[in-house]
Amino acid sequence: MALRLRAPAVLPCDPACTVIRDGVIDVDDAGRIVHCGPFADAPPFDAPVRECTGILLPGLVNAHAHSPMTVLRGLGGDLPLMRWLHEAIWPAEARLSDVDIAAGMRLGAVEMLRAGVTTSVEMYFHPERLAEAVLEVGTRAVLASALIDAPGWDWRRMLAEINSWIDADGLRSGPGERIELAYGPHSAYTLPPEALTRVAEAARERGALVHTHVAESLGEDTAQRAEYGSVPLMLERLGVLGGRVLAAHAVQMSDEDIAVFARHGVGVAHCPASNAKLASGIARLADLRRSGVHIGLGTDGPASNDALDLLADARLAAMLARLSTQDSTALTASGALLLATRGGAEAASREDIGALEPGRWADVVHVDVDDLAFPAGVDVPDDQLLANLVWSAGSRTVRDVWVAGEQVLSDGEPSTVDIAKVRAEARAVTRRLA
Amino acid sequence: MALRLRAPAVLPCDPACTVIRDGVIDVDDAGRIVHCGPFADAPPFDAPVRECTGILLPGLVNAHAHSPMTVLRGLGGDLPLMRWLHEAIWPAEARLSDVDIAAGMRLGAVEMLRAGVTTSVEMYFHPERLAEAVLEVGTRAVLASALIDAPGWDWRRMLAEINSWIDADGLRSGPGERIELAYGPHSAYTLPPEALTRVAEAARERGALVHTHVAESLGEDTAQRAEYGSVPLMLERLGVLGGRVLAAHAVQMSDEDIAVFARHGVGVAHCPASNAKLASGIARLADLRRSGVHIGLGTDGPASNDALDLLADARLAAMLARLSTQDSTALTASGALLLATRGGAEAASREDIGALEPGRWADVVHVDVDDLAFPAGVDVPDDQLLANLVWSAGSRTVRDVWVAGEQVLSDGEPSTVDIAKVRAEARAVTRRLA
Ligand SMILES: [Zn+2]
Ligand SMILES: [Zn+2]
Repeated sequence: MALRLRAPAVLPCDPACTVIRDGVIDVDDAGRIVHCGPFADAPPFDAPVRECTGILLPGLVNAHAHSPMTVLRGLGGDLPLMRWLHEAIWPAEARLSDVDIAAGMRLGAVEMLRAGVTTSVEMYFHPERLAEAVLEVGTRAVLASALIDAPGWDWRRMLAEINSWIDADGLRSGPGERIELAYGPHSAYTLPPEALTRVAEAARERGALVHTHVAESLGEDTAQRAEYGSVPLMLERLGVLGGRVLAAHAVQMSDEDIAVFARHGVGVAHCPASNAKLASGIARLADLRRSGVHIGLGTDGPASNDALDLLADARLAAMLARLSTQDSTALTASGALLLATRGGAEAASREDIGALEPGRWADVVHVDVDDLAFPAGVDVPDDQLLANLVWSAGSRTVRDVWVAGEQVLSDGEPSTVDIAKVRAEARAVTRRLA
Repeated sequence: MALRLRAPAVLPCDPACTVIRDGVIDVDDAGRIVHCGPFADAPPFDAPVRECTGILLPGLVNAHAHSPMTVLRGLGGDLPLMRWLHEAIWPAEARLSDVDIAAGMRLGAVEMLRAGVTTSVEMYFHPERLAEAVLEVGTRAVLASALIDAPGWDWRRMLAEINSWIDADGLRSGPGERIELAYGPHSAYTLPPEALTRVAEAARERGALVHTHVAESLGEDTAQRAEYGSVPLMLERLGVLGGRVLAAHAVQMSDEDIAVFARHGVGVAHCPASNAKLASGIARLADLRRSGVHIGLGTDGPASNDALDLLADARLAAMLARLSTQDSTALTASGALLLATRGGAEAASREDIGALEPGRWADVVHVDVDDLAFPAGVDVPDDQLLANLVWSAGSRTVRDVWVAGEQVLSDGEPSTVDIAKVRAEARAVTRRLA
């Protein structure tokens, strides 16, 4: 059903990060934006008007997540990294059934809606269960089905499965094309080189995204570094780059690695919170941006963040960019907001989300300005309003969310699922594994 | 009126960061804690019982703030530092009347209550107005009246004023000793050496705290560094150290500087968010702690943070400590929580707040665990509960707050002031200055 959203401030997240005062967003029956601009100049549009009192902005794009891990949040506390993985996280993950994973994904999707995140790129197992959970809650996801090579796991069989899912259902499916299937080869150090090449070939044939971990920390890929120089160089040599590739983390990158990514149009999911919590390092955001690499923001799994709060991570990204360059203008509030919206869409090579522009899906967030974060509501200059949103407000102020024109969060509560039931199901899993 | 608080989890913030399951806090008529421990072992206590459903912890201590600046939040957006100060912040501050400052302080105090902060160390002008605002909202504050040497400002007159305030009202005053007066010499680079010496003498005579900015960034104190080697060495030579001294920031510190602070029992207010936003650097938290310096956490002014959210800053402190040491155990969830509570009290040399222990004021925060941050409420192991609180929950989950046994926040709303009026008054100031 067509819809006009009107608000005192609209942030379309165009490259200049314009603030439209008294703006409208017109949405067609299919859930796509047909117009976004000032109310005064808007062409006539025959649709019910929803008057919003705060700020409208595009739904945020979480470019790297393992959201089912909400049920493992906080597990193992602050054990040192290797003990945390070996003694807490991996044994618990091994005990997760596909039903548990769906429960975790539902909880994660609700949490993301409350944080204004409408799309997440998920790397996990059981994409058919993830898709059910995502469609139930009404978010949007790119489901990069995980591939690894380990005892009990056969990457050839996993690859064949993803191929047949995509061939059967199509790359995108669901109402408002909410589901996109993708390939999730875990990393260069958990798969043989041949697997990486084959996955990339299969993805390119189908126009699908390849989502993989790259250069997260110095400890992980020593064998690959020794043989190929670096993982980006290895991926280039193996023919993995060239299609749609989204690399998570990209922390330990040389100038040459960055140039490889820029040359092949590889997107990067910058995960500042996870990289800080796990002491992996600070990605070279300023250098990556300067080189033209498309960069989005990722939360990473809620066990290593431990939230799914992308606005908080945008603020953190600005802080870390400033600290690592000793330049307080290295990333501004508007730059951080664009990373979390338009940037994430570009990094995942999706031109249909991440901004309020005609032709894109009407994934829209309404932020309440009746909050102490906005000492004068919207009645401040544009730069102050953006600063209030990014530096102070954060996800607390997200009130309503639409995905493909359908309202899925209403005054902070999901419109689609019974939140008490979602929480009870997840709670049972957490208790069992704690 | 005496009171027993009971909850499924109580965090007294003792040095081991114990989690008491089914715990009680007994508060006497004067508002002081008489007992804190498991319900099962508690001596009989004749008082009404308030049953809480979540976690009880001590009120957080914000060890460095300029809270009246809430009304300037976001002003100037992301201008480069020097332009931001000269073109936005300083001209606006010059236009703040004492009534405006009180309006900003009231708003800041409400915001802090909602973030679980019961005490703030405030460096600002017009302490008599700040005290009124603090008492109205019902928080607790150390009011370090600012001293600077600049055209129109006379440090001798300012010093004499503080002396006579303390001599007239006593060091601590108000219900539950909510107000402590203190000396706030702005910094070594905005005052002549003689002023620093005189202020310290006056403070020592009265047992008062000296609160000052030290080594925040490399640009500020070049003349002092050239003459004395560093500001800590300068303060030592001038006889400023030895009494109760609380240094804000302490980012650019040598090993020798740290040793000076340790030797004289100087407290440090670590301000990770402000230091990151302004690209000042990362304080050497691990080294400061190892040396035995008492460290608390400060938000700094809400114009350079831009929040008054100490739990968020505790999480950030852990992240930055881990990044700067490349050690994911450099600061744990419990370590971060202790910085924000007990550590802040120690840094300000206050033994009457910051922990739930007999004899201390009953400044208590009730955190709601009926939130997605706590996937299984309190039904998880201690380390997981602490991780959920610090890494995920943050201030969103603060529900009730007591100061000296008096409830001042109830289900997220201040019990003492009309929040609509507080906001309207602050809003008028923000609009006028925007
Ligand atoms: Zn990951
Ligand atoms: Zn300060």
